[in-house]
Amino acid sequence: MKPSIPKGTRDFSPTEVANRTYIMNTIKTAFETFGFQPIETPSFENSSTLMGKYGEEGDRLIFKILNSGDFLKKADETLLSEKNSLKVTSQISEKALRYDLTVPFARYVVQHQNDITFPFKRYQVQPVWRADRPQKGRFREFFQCDADVVGSKSLWQEVEFVQLYDTVFSKLGLAGTNIKINNRKILSGIAEVIGAQDKLIDFTVALDKLDKIGKEGVVKEMLSKGITEDAIEKVQPLFDFSGSNLDKLASLESMLSTSEEGTNGVEELRFVINAVEELGLETATLEVDVTLARGLNYYTGAIFEVAAPKGVKMGSIGGGGRYDDLTGIFGLKDVSGVGISFGLDRIYLVLEELGLFKAVDLPKPKVIFLNFESDTDVLKMKAIKVLRENSIKSEFYPDLAESNKAQKRQWKYVNSREIEFVVSKVDNDVFTLKNMVSGEQTDCNLSELVALLKAKL
Amino acid sequence: MKPSIPKGTRDFSPTEVANRTYIMNTIKTAFETFGFQPIETPSFENSSTLMGKYGEEGDRLIFKILNSGDFLKKADETLLSEKNSLKVTSQISEKALRYDLTVPFARYVVQHQNDITFPFKRYQVQPVWRADRPQKGRFREFFQCDADVVGSKSLWQEVEFVQLYDTVFSKLGLAGTNIKINNRKILSGIAEVIGAQDKLIDFTVALDKLDKIGKEGVVKEMLSKGITEDAIEKVQPLFDFSGSNLDKLASLESMLSTSEEGTNGVEELRFVINAVEELGLETATLEVDVTLARGLNYYTGAIFEVAAPKGVKMGSIGGGGRYDDLTGIFGLKDVSGVGISFGLDRIYLVLEELGLFKAVDLPKPKVIFLNFESDTDVLKMKAIKVLRENSIKSEFYPDLAESNKAQKRQWKYVNSREIEFVVSKVDNDVFTLKNMVSGEQTDCNLSELVALLKAKL
Repeated sequence: MKPSIPKGTRDFSPTEVANRTYIMNTIKTAFETFGFQPIETPSFENSSTLMGKYGEEGDRLIFKILNSGDFLKKADETLLSEKNSLKVTSQISEKALRYDLTVPFARYVVQHQNDITFPFKRYQVQPVWRADRPQKGRFREFFQCDADVVGSKSLWQEVEFVQLYDTVFSKLGLAGTNIKINNRKILSGIAEVIGAQDKLIDFTVALDKLDKIGKEGVVKEMLSKGITEDAIEKVQPLFDFSGSNLDKLASLESMLSTSEEGTNGVEELRFVINAVEELGLETATLEVDVTLARGLNYYTGAIFEVAAPKGVKMGSIGGGGRYDDLTGIFGLKDVSGVGISFGLDRIYLVLEELGLFKAVDLPKPKVIFLNFESDTDVLKMKAIKVLRENSIKSEFYPDLAESNKAQKRQWKYVNSREIEFVVSKVDNDVFTLKNMVSGEQTDCNLSELVALLKAKL
Repeated sequence: MKPSIPKGTRDFSPTEVANRTYIMNTIKTAFETFGFQPIETPSFENSSTLMGKYGEEGDRLIFKILNSGDFLKKADETLLSEKNSLKVTSQISEKALRYDLTVPFARYVVQHQNDITFPFKRYQVQPVWRADRPQKGRFREFFQCDADVVGSKSLWQEVEFVQLYDTVFSKLGLAGTNIKINNRKILSGIAEVIGAQDKLIDFTVALDKLDKIGKEGVVKEMLSKGITEDAIEKVQPLFDFSGSNLDKLASLESMLSTSEEGTNGVEELRFVINAVEELGLETATLEVDVTLARGLNYYTGAIFEVAAPKGVKMGSIGGGGRYDDLTGIFGLKDVSGVGISFGLDRIYLVLEELGLFKAVDLPKPKVIFLNFESDTDVLKMKAIKVLRENSIKSEFYPDLAESNKAQKRQWKYVNSREIEFVVSKVDNDVFTLKNMVSGEQTDCNLSELVALLKAKL
């Protein structure tokens, strides 16, 4: 029986690892250029650290690790005989796999608070695990790439995160991303104005359809959800919410003038919009989007989401926001945080679709020495040693070809790995080098060989 | 209550991540220079892939993942009431965390055999998990860095692995490592000569003490283990096993002349020793060590182990060998493999002890702009943007200092993060730059600032 891997997990081939590493290194380099520092946390945490932090659904999707040894010993017999899986879990499992990078980060900050200088700008690129139903683009093991600042309320952080998104996507060659921005305080202001905090989600979901179903359709949906005509009247400006970011801000300002929180939200948004306008973006756009409500129960200020360039069908490729009490769950109060995340797997799919991996240096040798006679082995290995010392990826085909068939196997190996240069013969200090792309063949000595291949790096 | 992490796991601080990344990147670069390609496998595998592959002890130390949802539903009621942990495990857990990188690699090769061109040179740098009792230098989560070749029996692979060890440790500045080499066939030959395969471990363990307890002590221990005087007499040369590698090979050759397998082992060893001698090593030494018996049930040819430089108290910092039937466990016969592993955590401790992390580029900004007045914010952020475009890690202190105390907090931040350069003031295009190491202060314009800091990269 052919072996397999658990559903929702993946093996990565050499090319896939190289492409993923290219994305991750681009992100990490940008993080460091912006002053962020890497940390890493364990793959599993004490269950008490994770449970109850992601809602009931989250608790269910956390992978639990069975205690080692005689794990049933301490389990309650009645619960076992009742097969009460829910209650038995905590008796036979004390550890769980990381579900995201944010809660472990909060735990880290609280645990190491005396060693940390605030504001603490950290980044973290590690896998997380979720027992979700796997589907296209959704896996049970996947990497998150997060950057957060804790211990500062300055809105310059929000500005920098917009720049950071722009920097990373520009470096990846992904022009035309759209960074959508909203503010939780504006959403609260809207709820205040329409007189119903509990209808806010229905409201934003309906409003989001404006493009598709037009004003009439949206109003109809809102009424059907129990939002009153009076309330809808009060937020009229949102139905005509097209112009520039500054137009939108002006609309919001007058609409939310009766709400102090809403007004604060508009001011915060204006600061970020103006600053980004002054500093300029390379390839991204920044767009005020009042329908943006991700993580509503979590964020307290700015909310971000990044859409792939137009024409690419893909959900958001990044998101984040400000949360005023990240570390409160672990007993450290009043530490404001703001952060963003890059969706590695979706970015991968977008770059693949757009053919943007061409520049990635694939993990294959630049040159291979074929093995058609054994008396030049040492000569070849000596040359390979020099090439490697010059950072030229080099390989010696390990098995001597003792037949024509075996020689063909070596050429097949060259072709299947798409190796650019082949040394097929060595005679004293004369190396016969073939360029497999052009078909050109040259005889050269070792120092010429090194120079020639170095020039091709 | 202060949060904590599970025993045997670790948080890594920014400096630790940087140092670990430095080691891993050095290893990965060497792997690629030698023609190895990266793959990655999932953190958890189907239990059936892992169980039974590491012996009874291994099975016990594998971390099992609890099935999601109502996991007790399918469990046998009798076994539950008996609290039979061992048998219940397979009924409530179908997945387990990776225990090493070799078995998942074997699984990968078999599963993807039609997409792989052999010989397949792969490397893999990923964490593994073991429910071992934690102790100094032994953790429940740790990284393995493995390179293996499958599908070639050529002894040039063994030669290249010796070179690879030498390359990596030389690049890390770790001069004086000792690569010990043995061959399973020599051990089999010795067993044949002493007439007792089952006494081989006792024999090598005793022989290993030659330096400490002298010949008499060793003979005494061997006799106490039931090895006959006659047998000891036959392997006399091993007690006088000092000279050069070639001396040792000569001793072994005559001693094992009656054993075909032993003779083959000597020949294999001679090939590797001679080739390495011809090619030369940069900082490592290669030493024949017939007491080396790691993974005895596993390896079929060469056996490697690397000792840290003399004077550093540390177990082996690397090891490996040849195994003739790696993929047989998953049904693919006759695929020979040979590989080595680097012990990241121990290498870390050795480099730390010897002060060899000095060259590591720590993840901190090269320059920080202080925030003592708000009217130059945009000027500063514009300058920072230019610096970052020039790959200079730059940071803007996010919060405005509205008091002397707050100004001091910013200087404290600079000192605690050991940031080298500070821009304390900006006036039009005049930047006041302070070198925190020399204390020197300069006024310069933006292009001078960029040039000055670029020169310090």
